[in-house]
Amino acid sequence: MVRRVGVLTGGGDCPGLNAVIRAITKAGIMEHGMEIVGIENGFGGLIHGLFRELKSRDVSGILPRGGTILGTTNRDNPFAYPVEKGDEVVYEDRSDECMENFRRAALDALIVIGGDGSQSIGYRFYQKGMPVVGVPKTIDNDLLATDVTFGYESALLTATEAIDKLHTTAESHHRVMVLEVMGREAGWIALGAGIAGGADVILIPEIPFKVDRVCKKILQRVEEKKNFSIVVVAEGAYPEGGSPVYKTTFDGRKKLGGIGNWVAEEIEMETGIETRVTVLGHLQRGGTPVPFDRILATRYGVAAINEVAKGNFGVVMCLQNDRVVPIPMEKVVGGNKLVDPNGELVTYAKEIGTSFGI
Amino acid sequence: MVRRVGVLTGGGDCPGLNAVIRAITKAGIMEHGMEIVGIENGFGGLIHGLFRELKSRDVSGILPRGGTILGTTNRDNPFAYPVEKGDEVVYEDRSDECMENFRRAALDALIVIGGDGSQSIGYRFYQKGMPVVGVPKTIDNDLLATDVTFGYESALLTATEAIDKLHTTAESHHRVMVLEVMGREAGWIALGAGIAGGADVILIPEIPFKVDRVCKKILQRVEEKKNFSIVVVAEGAYPEGGSPVYKTTFDGRKKLGGIGNWVAEEIEMETGIETRVTVLGHLQRGGTPVPFDRILATRYGVAAINEVAKGNFGVVMCLQNDRVVPIPMEKVVGGNKLVDPNGELVTYAKEIGTSFGI
Amino acid sequence: MVRRVGVLTGGGDCPGLNAVIRAITKAGIMEHGMEIVGIENGFGGLIHGLFRELKSRDVSGILPRGGTILGTTNRDNPFAYPVEKGDEVVYEDRSDECMENFRRAALDALIVIGGDGSQSIGYRFYQKGMPVVGVPKTIDNDLLATDVTFGYESALLTATEAIDKLHTTAESHHRVMVLEVMGREAGWIALGAGIAGGADVILIPEIPFKVDRVCKKILQRVEEKKNFSIVVVAEGAYPEGGSPVYKTTFDGRKKLGGIGNWVAEEIEMETGIETRVTVLGHLQRGGTPVPFDRILATRYGVAAINEVAKGNFGVVMCLQNDRVVPIPMEKVVGGNKLVDPNGELVTYAKEIGTSFGI
Amino acid sequence: MVRRVGVLTGGGDCPGLNAVIRAITKAGIMEHGMEIVGIENGFGGLIHGLFRELKSRDVSGILPRGGTILGTTNRDNPFAYPVEKGDEVVYEDRSDECMENFRRAALDALIVIGGDGSQSIGYRFYQKGMPVVGVPKTIDNDLLATDVTFGYESALLTATEAIDKLHTTAESHHRVMVLEVMGREAGWIALGAGIAGGADVILIPEIPFKVDRVCKKILQRVEEKKNFSIVVVAEGAYPEGGSPVYKTTFDGRKKLGGIGNWVAEEIEMETGIETRVTVLGHLQRGGTPVPFDRILATRYGVAAINEVAKGNFGVVMCLQNDRVVPIPMEKVVGGNKLVDPNGELVTYAKEIGTSFGI
Repeated sequence: MVRRVGVLTGGGDCPGLNAVIRAITKAGIMEHGMEIVGIENGFGGLIHGLFRELKSRDVSGILPRGGTILGTTNRDNPFAYPVEKGDEVVYEDRSDECMENFRRAALDALIVIGGDGSQSIGYRFYQKGMPVVGVPKTIDNDLLATDVTFGYESALLTATEAIDKLHTTAESHHRVMVLEVMGREAGWIALGAGIAGGADVILIPEIPFKVDRVCKKILQRVEEKKNFSIVVVAEGAYPEGGSPVYKTTFDGRKKLGGIGNWVAEEIEMETGIETRVTVLGHLQRGGTPVPFDRILATRYGVAAINEVAKGNFGVVMCLQNDRVVPIPMEKVVGGNKLVDPNGELVTYAKEIGTSFGI
Repeated sequence: MVRRVGVLTGGGDCPGLNAVIRAITKAGIMEHGMEIVGIENGFGGLIHGLFRELKSRDVSGILPRGGTILGTTNRDNPFAYPVEKGDEVVYEDRSDECMENFRRAALDALIVIGGDGSQSIGYRFYQKGMPVVGVPKTIDNDLLATDVTFGYESALLTATEAIDKLHTTAESHHRVMVLEVMGREAGWIALGAGIAGGADVILIPEIPFKVDRVCKKILQRVEEKKNFSIVVVAEGAYPEGGSPVYKTTFDGRKKLGGIGNWVAEEIEMETGIETRVTVLGHLQRGGTPVPFDRILATRYGVAAINEVAKGNFGVVMCLQNDRVVPIPMEKVVGGNKLVDPNGELVTYAKEIGTSFGI
Repeated sequence: MVRRVGVLTGGGDCPGLNAVIRAITKAGIMEHGMEIVGIENGFGGLIHGLFRELKSRDVSGILPRGGTILGTTNRDNPFAYPVEKGDEVVYEDRSDECMENFRRAALDALIVIGGDGSQSIGYRFYQKGMPVVGVPKTIDNDLLATDVTFGYESALLTATEAIDKLHTTAESHHRVMVLEVMGREAGWIALGAGIAGGADVILIPEIPFKVDRVCKKILQRVEEKKNFSIVVVAEGAYPEGGSPVYKTTFDGRKKLGGIGNWVAEEIEMETGIETRVTVLGHLQRGGTPVPFDRILATRYGVAAINEVAKGNFGVVMCLQNDRVVPIPMEKVVGGNKLVDPNGELVTYAKEIGTSFGI
Repeated sequence: MVRRVGVLTGGGDCPGLNAVIRAITKAGIMEHGMEIVGIENGFGGLIHGLFRELKSRDVSGILPRGGTILGTTNRDNPFAYPVEKGDEVVYEDRSDECMENFRRAALDALIVIGGDGSQSIGYRFYQKGMPVVGVPKTIDNDLLATDVTFGYESALLTATEAIDKLHTTAESHHRVMVLEVMGREAGWIALGAGIAGGADVILIPEIPFKVDRVCKKILQRVEEKKNFSIVVVAEGAYPEGGSPVYKTTFDGRKKLGGIGNWVAEEIEMETGIETRVTVLGHLQRGGTPVPFDRILATRYGVAAINEVAKGNFGVVMCLQNDRVVPIPMEKVVGGNKLVDPNGELVTYAKEIGTSFGI
């Protein structure tokens, strides 16, 4: 029987993480009579034994808060833990320590709240014998097995409010406003916020763009006496024939000054219209989750702890046709759900005049 | 061939209406080469011939705005138009005038954006020979044929932000805070906002409540040293054995001072804890739509005008399994989608300790 | 020398309280090397000895949060503490216990963050020999000695956003929307939000109104083809010749269903126009403080602890000509700063067409 | 007697412009029986004769909207109008055309809503005999003669909300978050938002910083187990001995990738802690004005038209000791109100532990 359940959050920050932790803790204690143990800083805490019991009062009031009370990191892979040896970095397998810490803490199960990377690590622990249940997480909305992920709608709100603000000032000033949003592999945030904010141009990784098509759209608007334009760019968007800017990094660090700045310079040079850039960056990961995400995160949390109570491990909870169901880990891990360039959203956006730079 | 398309908004106000009008107008003009004609004040405008052509610039900038640029009303049924005759009100059938106005304006089709009542009227016009396509609308999210309606998530945001605010002040003051939200027949807003806001008690029409169970929950929290409680009440909620307060109206007017005030008085009397009430009222219908609703509304709008272009009439556009599809009107009209007292949402809410007053 | 300083929050909740507590704690520890002791639940904590030391980490992250981490109450006057004796309530003087608790906790000074009532109590303790410094607090902005109080701008934002939302739905529906806001003695919130939100009618306690003048304004708008109106009512507003509704209470409890509902019923009856009511209630006390209030609250907090460090007691910190200065308590206590019916704000509001119901 | 009054908005966009236009129009028509004429696109409209009469209905509903319904520009100086002659740009004096257009439109007075540059132009027209009244405008809050400018509090809200969001994600991730805000000459936005958001480091043009002091503060926080830091940078901030980045521009264009990116790179390199950047850009000029700005803007507008009605020209309306008073133009033009490095705000911020990089 499952009595003590560990929970950790891994990978990038995402609005709704605290709502999942809260739901797991409350339902675990009240519905199933379990003890819930928080593991700090993602898998790092499993390596270093950073455990603390979560009581009902520890999760009181965290529902509206962004971030995660457990901390998170997108480093610290126990199966490839980076260690500096002189000038080099070598990678060690520290998963056995984790198994040992798990046993020593008398845990009966582990819930991993995280993205693709974290779920892969969770799967490897499951294969080593640890009873694991996963809860999917990404603001990018690009997971294969689940219809929607929590955090996405909150990121959309931040990005859409930004477009709304840029609209008023663009209109008054006859300017082009470029907004760079998150999305390295998939353009869901750019597409969603672009439609919601009424952007004139949307540039996403799935549809490599041509700068001259972007400029043509802007100049065509000028002819129609619409003296301003809003361009939304996913950070992973890139010109046809080029490659994503974020990939040209150095030493593992993101090259500062990304595709947004590049596009703006090109537009200003080709059209002669003043162009300004806003880079939202981690604003999109922060702040209070919208109701949609809070409810979805709560559902994931309760569903996950119920699955743990049933003893059904090696699964990731997924939303499919508005039901949260367990899906075997091997079917979930790997691959991204990309925007379909011929799908309903892109097609409809084109019908109302949005340009994708092609 | 369809060349001129009329569009009207009927029934209560709802965030996202302008997004639908904009999508219809833009896609109609740019994709299909149509002319779009706005009909003002719902079916009243069809009776009185209040038509004006909508150009692209008329819908520019309306995406983020609440309300409807066409105006709306929940009176003015052309099939039962109220006329004062001396002291009495008699109802006249003015639908033939509408048919005549429709013809005179050289319209080839009508898009009705509205709730159950408006779609019923639309259906009757369709039966009289008018080519009609419907777009469903309600902040209450209680339509049968469609998975979600636009406006609901925006109403949830308003209600959830209210709970967040009440939380901080309830905590500091050791008080009970009662929030009355919309929902006469269905408790979707109360349930959604209650879960999203972490309410301690949620009262909805589908689950008649007992005041002493509500008070018991509140007093139990006091024993657990949680000296405050948040109670969310749908306006149509009522105590077991009683009847919905909003139904005891006079002269068609809502009795002022509804179930929220009643519940608060009962709690204060029984528990002796200071209790305060907030009645959100029409705040829930106003304000800018959230991205979810803007995108959904845009999809409904484009899908509707595409259906018109195909010449497929007598249908209401519905979201089913994340696709917007046409459903025959007779299958859509009548009946409410109610909260299932044994469904996932209510069950999960109970698992994390929420009381439904039973 | 002052080494240990107590701090308490008294009276109603107000956005910015946590910012004051944070500033006192941080500046006290870092700048002055003091120990800061939080006293819980206002003066109640002084009676019952609810003390806990505040470290830097206790105030980390509380700046954006509404409410007060110390709790507050508007009962528990140590000089008139209510005790039930049989069926009666008698009032005892428990101030000596407070003096004793203060000494036993080795406190050298007390900072009282509170409104008029709390400052009066603070003053009486000062007269008994306790070294007290006050920080004024009220969302109503009606304190005599200080130009502005923190919390007011945050309450204005909540009320103004409400008016903005009501506007969109009122416009679409041709309705009258009544919004009841806080303000029993003074109409600052109604006046400020009314101007900021573009209300058509503003009713405040300082200007007793005539219902027929209110209705005349509304009907005049109908004639000008403006088929909707927004009416903002302070809870203490009352018709000429009448008396404030909130005063007709029973057993110290506010009568539920206040002046907002009354005004709405009158308007609907006299004009025949559908009228809806929103009662904001404690929403106005909750939520994150706006930057203006956070900065002002921080200034009050630092100024107060600096004054304590100087050993200057018996004063309340006041904002005068944009400087936070110490004012002797006897000059601050008692009296309200009311809206001047002939002042700039009311006069300017009238010039742009706002009616005050007279 | 003044019968017809022109109004224009010049310079950068700013929340509250529409509120001024609305107040001028409403009070002009209703209180003074004037005609109000909007001039489009700043002084450009005066050159090109872009005039249109503003009626009450034209300003209905614009109070909450960002931007300016009249359009604006920060080019088009009539006294030095740029004209391309071959490869060169020469500057022509077109002020006489403006005088002629003014007369032809039968205007009796002009209200100039704008910043320092616009007021200087207004002053020159006044010297040429045009009856001019100015309304000061800047989100930067750096005008000499007026205590506060509208727009500043709205920009602070945008920047503070951004810090709040970055806080939650910085905490969870143990990161440094850098936020670049507006402020080329003066650091008011960075200082205000930094205090309101609880930033750990604030860098402003008035206090040239040392990178190693910034890094020292961050590393000191790590030692105190505070594994994240928030750095707010004004765009005009620069390292000691260096010069403002925005000044090193090319061809009049702002160099893309400003001081925020530079600071972030330095921090990451020196401390080894992951650092992320958000550049708010024109978000700070957009969006709905906060109540403070709407009220202030309304007061400026009414006061300006009242001054016009009195025939008192050659003045700029200024807020001094909470009264809007006319100040002779020659006293207002030129010079910036800078942050005092030894003033109350900076001193208090230091007392609670904020570093200014020195």
